[in-house]
Amino acid sequence: MKDIARQAGVSQSAVSFALNGRPGVSEDTRDRVRRVAEELGWRPSTAARALSGEGAATVGFVLARPAETLGVDSFFLQLVSGIQEVLAERHLGLLFQVVEDVEDECAVYRRWWAEHRVDGVLVVDPRTDDPRTGVLDELGLPGVVIGGAPDERHPGLSTVWADDAGAMAAVVDELYALGHRRIVHIAGLPGLAHTERRIRTLRAEAERRGLTGVKSVTTDYSDAAGAAVTRRVLEAPAPPTALIYDNDVMALAGVAAATELGHSVPRDVSVVAWEDSALCRMVKPWLSALSRDSVEFGRTAATELTALLDGGPARTVRVPVPRLIVRDSTGVARGT
Amino acid sequence: MKDIARQAGVSQSAVSFALNGRPGVSEDTRDRVRRVAEELGWRPSTAARALSGEGAATVGFVLARPAETLGVDSFFLQLVSGIQEVLAERHLGLLFQVVEDVEDECAVYRRWWAEHRVDGVLVVDPRTDDPRTGVLDELGLPGVVIGGAPDERHPGLSTVWADDAGAMAAVVDELYALGHRRIVHIAGLPGLAHTERRIRTLRAEAERRGLTGVKSVTTDYSDAAGAAVTRRVLEAPAPPTALIYDNDVMALAGVAAATELGHSVPRDVSVVAWEDSALCRMVKPWLSALSRDSVEFGRTAATELTALLDGGPARTVRVPVPRLIVRDSTGVARGT
Repeated sequence: MKDIARQAGVSQSAVSFALNGRPGVSEDTRDRVRRVAEELGWRPSTAARALSGEGAATVGFVLARPAETLGVDSFFLQLVSGIQEVLAERHLGLLFQVVEDVEDECAVYRRWWAEHRVDGVLVVDPRTDDPRTGVLDELGLPGVVIGGAPDERHPGLSTVWADDAGAMAAVVDELYALGHRRIVHIAGLPGLAHTERRIRTLRAEAERRGLTGVKSVTTDYSDAAGAAVTRRVLEAPAPPTALIYDNDVMALAGVAAATELGHSVPRDVSVVAWEDSALCRMVKPWLSALSRDSVEFGRTAATELTALLDGGPARTVRVPVPRLIVRDSTGVARGT
Repeated sequence: MKDIARQAGVSQSAVSFALNGRPGVSEDTRDRVRRVAEELGWRPSTAARALSGEGAATVGFVLARPAETLGVDSFFLQLVSGIQEVLAERHLGLLFQVVEDVEDECAVYRRWWAEHRVDGVLVVDPRTDDPRTGVLDELGLPGVVIGGAPDERHPGLSTVWADDAGAMAAVVDELYALGHRRIVHIAGLPGLAHTERRIRTLRAEAERRGLTGVKSVTTDYSDAAGAAVTRRVLEAPAPPTALIYDNDVMALAGVAAATELGHSVPRDVSVVAWEDSALCRMVKPWLSALSRDSVEFGRTAATELTALLDGGPARTVRVPVPRLIVRDSTGVARGT
């Protein structure tokens, strides 16, 4: 304080007034004091800044998933990397918490907001029936929903989403062209907005083509569930000739399970993985997969949140449709 | 404040004194006010708590790795899950940041501490020559080093570590008993303390047995590096009959690369992965792997940090040695 006062040529109390955003000094003095303060490496304590109404300089991120499903999930780490890139530029921290379910998540939001710990939050895994958006509305806590479809009931929240429906339609197009008529979609967690979008689209695409041997089965995203459902559907009468998995880990486990049962990929059954990661190129055959830029997805979401925090309007941003990369796990349907 | 004052039967200024930890009220009054305040659901704002010296109620965690190496790293997500379990019980937040290198990490620590954002930090990926511990000493910022060997030069820091040396010795024992004499260790990032411990142990074990065809090659942990080094060593004269990989992803990529070159696992070459994850059971053959409980590792580290924050002494805690799970990727050395 003393150094800043001397260098700016003002009194110490003027420095205090200027840095704490209180009236009593001119705009010129305030600017000069802040400039000098910055040159001298002064930084407001988060605490002081929060009390003076300048915010917590922190963004919240809660993950309501059981720890074990996170084991090999490349999507979240890449998403968080992209988020961090943007936050780091703005000197914003990321307050991170893993909880059991969305009810706990709502409680965390209430506590964070009451304690001035965050300025805004990034919401992931939106549900079709989601209590979180209502809580954010009620609190007035700025938020960006990642992966949700636009929702007019919550005009204060921004949304960043990908067109899962378009991607699913592209997968069905490709498989149909290869002669596949019996397709099983081994989906992720039921109740997630993007899971339901994929299921609805698959059903619509099947109906449009008059296919009756097409269905979705929901799971917990784990490799164990991917393998179990694969075994079950392949051993049922009239087994599918193509399998669509909602993540890379289930696809890998599914290929292993199919192979064990004597089904060759892609000769007997074609496989598409929803998430393209290094894993898809680590098994034989290399997996055809839907590719998206999860790091960029994180960047976009964080950018939208900082725009909200800067007082901008809530927006809906659509990131590019995941692109189908055709590799060796998809082929002409057997008997075609 | 008014409600608390009424219910506790004291003046509003007494409430303010009591809740802000300032002198001027008796211990009895302070206790009563706090009890009433808690009953009424009052929570101190983090800001007020920080200014009153009660801390930020937040723990910092910085990851100095390029985003792309995080893609399929199950270890960190599991570690963070375990950390969160302990922090959640204590209502502590986790402030998370991804940076380029340890120099940036030191700058983050300085800023967090100057701004009262964290009460302590968890330090991962300790280096053999690590600037971070010195910075923590200098700042007086409480910290727990995860994965480092005990270091007497930094008596203020706790350490939670696993005996990589013991685990590596067990792997060499197993491979030696199977007749392997030429072994290549495809290691992780050079300069990391645990990488160097593994390399040193492998060298010592080889020397003890008079083996000359044993070496370590460092990488960036990526599947691409795992595949490239595997190709290089298998195509060199006198190729190894056993490969030890420092993570699961490199092991998977290595098996794929070896198979492409016409080497059958384990007939021509045996493979051990350092990290046991679901991936190791998703390929054929299932990979022999070193198993550790990364969630428990995170719990232990967070528990040690909260003990430090409660004023306890710095400690060194050793978690169980990673255990070698022998599956189908290790066999008798060819020609034995």
